[in-house]
Amino acid sequence: MNGRLLIHCPDRHGIVAAVAGFLAASGANIISSDQHSTDPEGGEFFMRMEFNLERGDLEALGRAFAQEVGERLDMTWRLTDAGRPKRMAILVSREDHCLVDLLWRHRRGELDAEIPLVASNHPDHAEDVAGFGIPYHHAPWPNEPELLGLLQGCDVVVLARYMRILSGDFLEQLGLPVINIHHSFLPAFAGANPYQRAFERGVKVIGATAHYVTEELDAGPIIDQDVTRVSHRETPQTMMRLGRDIERTVLARAVNAHLEDRVLVHGNRTVVF
Amino acid sequence: MNGRLLIHCPDRHGIVAAVAGFLAASGANIISSDQHSTDPEGGEFFMRMEFNLERGDLEALGRAFAQEVGERLDMTWRLTDAGRPKRMAILVSREDHCLVDLLWRHRRGELDAEIPLVASNHPDHAEDVAGFGIPYHHAPWPNEPELLGLLQGCDVVVLARYMRILSGDFLEQLGLPVINIHHSFLPAFAGANPYQRAFERGVKVIGATAHYVTEELDAGPIIDQDVTRVSHRETPQTMMRLGRDIERTVLARAVNAHLEDRVLVHGNRTVVF
Amino acid sequence: MNGRLLIHCPDRHGIVAAVAGFLAASGANIISSDQHSTDPEGGEFFMRMEFNLERGDLEALGRAFAQEVGERLDMTWRLTDAGRPKRMAILVSREDHCLVDLLWRHRRGELDAEIPLVASNHPDHAEDVAGFGIPYHHAPWPNEPELLGLLQGCDVVVLARYMRILSGDFLEQLGLPVINIHHSFLPAFAGANPYQRAFERGVKVIGATAHYVTEELDAGPIIDQDVTRVSHRETPQTMMRLGRDIERTVLARAVNAHLEDRVLVHGNRTVVF
Amino acid sequence: MNGRLLIHCPDRHGIVAAVAGFLAASGANIISSDQHSTDPEGGEFFMRMEFNLERGDLEALGRAFAQEVGERLDMTWRLTDAGRPKRMAILVSREDHCLVDLLWRHRRGELDAEIPLVASNHPDHAEDVAGFGIPYHHAPWPNEPELLGLLQGCDVVVLARYMRILSGDFLEQLGLPVINIHHSFLPAFAGANPYQRAFERGVKVIGATAHYVTEELDAGPIIDQDVTRVSHRETPQTMMRLGRDIERTVLARAVNAHLEDRVLVHGNRTVVF
Repeated sequence: MNGRLLIHCPDRHGIVAAVAGFLAASGANIISSDQHSTDPEGGEFFMRMEFNLERGDLEALGRAFAQEVGERLDMTWRLTDAGRPKRMAILVSREDHCLVDLLWRHRRGELDAEIPLVASNHPDHAEDVAGFGIPYHHAPWPNEPELLGLLQGCDVVVLARYMRILSGDFLEQLGLPVINIHHSFLPAFAGANPYQRAFERGVKVIGATAHYVTEELDAGPIIDQDVTRVSHRETPQTMMRLGRDIERTVLARAVNAHLEDRVLVHGNRTVVF
Repeated sequence: MNGRLLIHCPDRHGIVAAVAGFLAASGANIISSDQHSTDPEGGEFFMRMEFNLERGDLEALGRAFAQEVGERLDMTWRLTDAGRPKRMAILVSREDHCLVDLLWRHRRGELDAEIPLVASNHPDHAEDVAGFGIPYHHAPWPNEPELLGLLQGCDVVVLARYMRILSGDFLEQLGLPVINIHHSFLPAFAGANPYQRAFERGVKVIGATAHYVTEELDAGPIIDQDVTRVSHRETPQTMMRLGRDIERTVLARAVNAHLEDRVLVHGNRTVVF
Repeated sequence: MNGRLLIHCPDRHGIVAAVAGFLAASGANIISSDQHSTDPEGGEFFMRMEFNLERGDLEALGRAFAQEVGERLDMTWRLTDAGRPKRMAILVSREDHCLVDLLWRHRRGELDAEIPLVASNHPDHAEDVAGFGIPYHHAPWPNEPELLGLLQGCDVVVLARYMRILSGDFLEQLGLPVINIHHSFLPAFAGANPYQRAFERGVKVIGATAHYVTEELDAGPIIDQDVTRVSHRETPQTMMRLGRDIERTVLARAVNAHLEDRVLVHGNRTVVF
Repeated sequence: MNGRLLIHCPDRHGIVAAVAGFLAASGANIISSDQHSTDPEGGEFFMRMEFNLERGDLEALGRAFAQEVGERLDMTWRLTDAGRPKRMAILVSREDHCLVDLLWRHRRGELDAEIPLVASNHPDHAEDVAGFGIPYHHAPWPNEPELLGLLQGCDVVVLARYMRILSGDFLEQLGLPVINIHHSFLPAFAGANPYQRAFERGVKVIGATAHYVTEELDAGPIIDQDVTRVSHRETPQTMMRLGRDIERTVLARAVNAHLEDRVLVHGNRTVVF
């Protein structure tokens, strides 16, 4: 079986040797390894190792890691089973381009996830989603308790242009990572109507930002961003159309990074391996 | 001789025919033509025509144009001599990458301008600028009257990383277009230390913006922008280094567009043909 | 009604004035205009004008244009009705990402076309295409006569990853523009297995090219291209996955340009307004 | 002191543990680590580790590494002193944009190298190069023996638009890595006049490629590439101008990667950490 070990700790001597030595001694063969240090002297250290474990199980490996390495080196760490796809719920409002893109990528095998449900404050997408064999829930807004119920048992929630603001209470009770796609290159044009405001400001690039949702609107840790050039010929409407292509691509990249355990959050920033 | 006619007027029927007909009747052969309308019904119309005038002079052509076309169609227009390079002053502070890039492009014939002077609040670049055969003025800040004197007779002023804020009074007395390069993708990170703030926000793209200077800081009409991707590996220092390449490219493109009379300003937005 | 006039002729004095004057005199209001000259002296001149015709019809306008302008100025020209969507057939083999992308864009109103049919040498996509309410024809290869029959009455044919080589005879009998998406940045890696060959050559960018099909494989006039960066981490398989995003975007842009009559072919090159 | 260890070997279990364990036991603190495996089962393994060595010297470390790790794991490896800038010679012909860009980056501290000389088959750049305090040699072509003499004692040679083809004999006698910038996105338009040929083919992107020079023209391992979009408006001349910006950026990135020991060559492909 394949596992992934994600580590965050104060940087100091010997971390790689300790972790790699532990894995080798445990019969785990490292497949890929990425690390990042904000500063070798007194900085923060981040690492992701993907490994193949020939025998034994991840739980036992985790217990041993905690005792032999994790505690000694003040690590925050998690161990995930690379063979278990995450359960990913998708929330969507009227605009369907991000939803449809995720569903198609999923069907093509580009996203390593199970999608137990799509929920929306609109009934519009029921038929399309059914065509992918995925349950669709029409959950009129506001009804956070109903949403909480629906999302039970999920590992991650993706807001694929879900134009409702989730409360801090909701996020806390949910207790899951929530990924949002915002239709501007944040921090520019946070909040409503970014294409209209981009048009009015006369910018020459527009963009999209995928980020983890926090209580503060459009201010959570950014996972990925991208932009496209625009000219004076664009209107807010044509910007929306161009923007759809960026939004779906950026969201898919961010979702993929999350599903493959390649994102570590540190304060309001991310390390994306 | 080659001339350029730039027009802004309310959109209505027959503008292209009127202007093209006038030019043809005046012995001017259109070399290139660009137009833009915000809305064919009741919108704003913009046009740039470059033409060759076989005989006669631009001044007489302009007088005839005003009488026969311009007034009748409520046009704001200007006529420039494509054969007369604009006189472009460059102001710079410590960072020299934009300055040097402009000077090299100028020497290679990439910028159709005369550069009568470079002025700086630092003495540092005297030798480099002298190597290009261009006068260098060390004008310690603040001394707006001295600057005003130096810039007499120029057609355009370029702030090639000039880290001083010009007052509204100064801009009014100067009465010239002033192009600034700001080291962020505006409107994000207007003001001081954009790379530091981009780092702190954890963005995944950084950029640069060339814009006309208005009294409000970093809020004038944008001429050009571009970005580059960054990852968690960047520090504010490496962002600065990556950013230098974007800044110099964006500034050069914007300066070129201005020198070739390809920019029309409309409110706080630009049409760049 | 809105019309589009596309012109190609030897460059000379007075073309814009003649055309704009004709349109104004015919009660046609120019909405947008683009022109390009390879050389004002003895070069080729290209123009696209979109206009609103308040009364009368395009056919009569065309007859008048031929007599009054077209013949006199040695023009090749065509006049299209902007209100009549083109009939666009789509041919596809196994890979469905370009097909699905076009169908979704069409459903969202991003493509101004009718799609009378999708045909494939595989039966696989029947259900998906039916979900969009479009007829699907399984036309096993080789059977060019059957294909010719199916494509009767179309205006344009799009090869959305149709991995069969159409013969020169077929193209001639078809007599329609055929747009292909090739999964490399041509002229690199023309022919089979471009991602495998890109991998073997160790390139750091991969791309896609949309072009009109000619008898010579992957050598027709290019309409659009784009690329994405790759690193040593990619395999031919991950390149294929990354490439799919480029292919569908480039094909959609090229198809859009064609549908809006923004492409003029000149020899083996295109002017795309 | 800081060192860099570059490793290439057959992939197998325990490599990271062996290397990291050796370094930890030798008092070397890993600062950054990158690795790549073409396939965990039977593939090729590449690694780059940068480390700080508190006491001792690199030579002794290398000897110990060979005995304890390198031989046992069939490694090809090299150890470099990160504190010793490489000696980089630059060869150039008429076009000076890449040369000047490298010299400016060097002066700004962006390139960790010594530049003992610039040599050219033209005398043109003598004054500019002198302005940077670097010796300039006019070495008329052909005279490979003279060049060989000049390049004695260098670590790397950069062809900054050196439009002469170096013979296989010369390259063998030189025995140094040679980096070339080619003004097309290889493998398209290898050889002479790439912009002219790109124009004739009607491509919509142009690019540049930095690669190690091998005996076969423009066919060596690619280090970096980039492109920019072009339209029908470009001529071969304006493509050259646009291309200059890509060429200098791509060359600088490739040179930097080489100087920081981030490039490993494997067959005709590169791993760039």
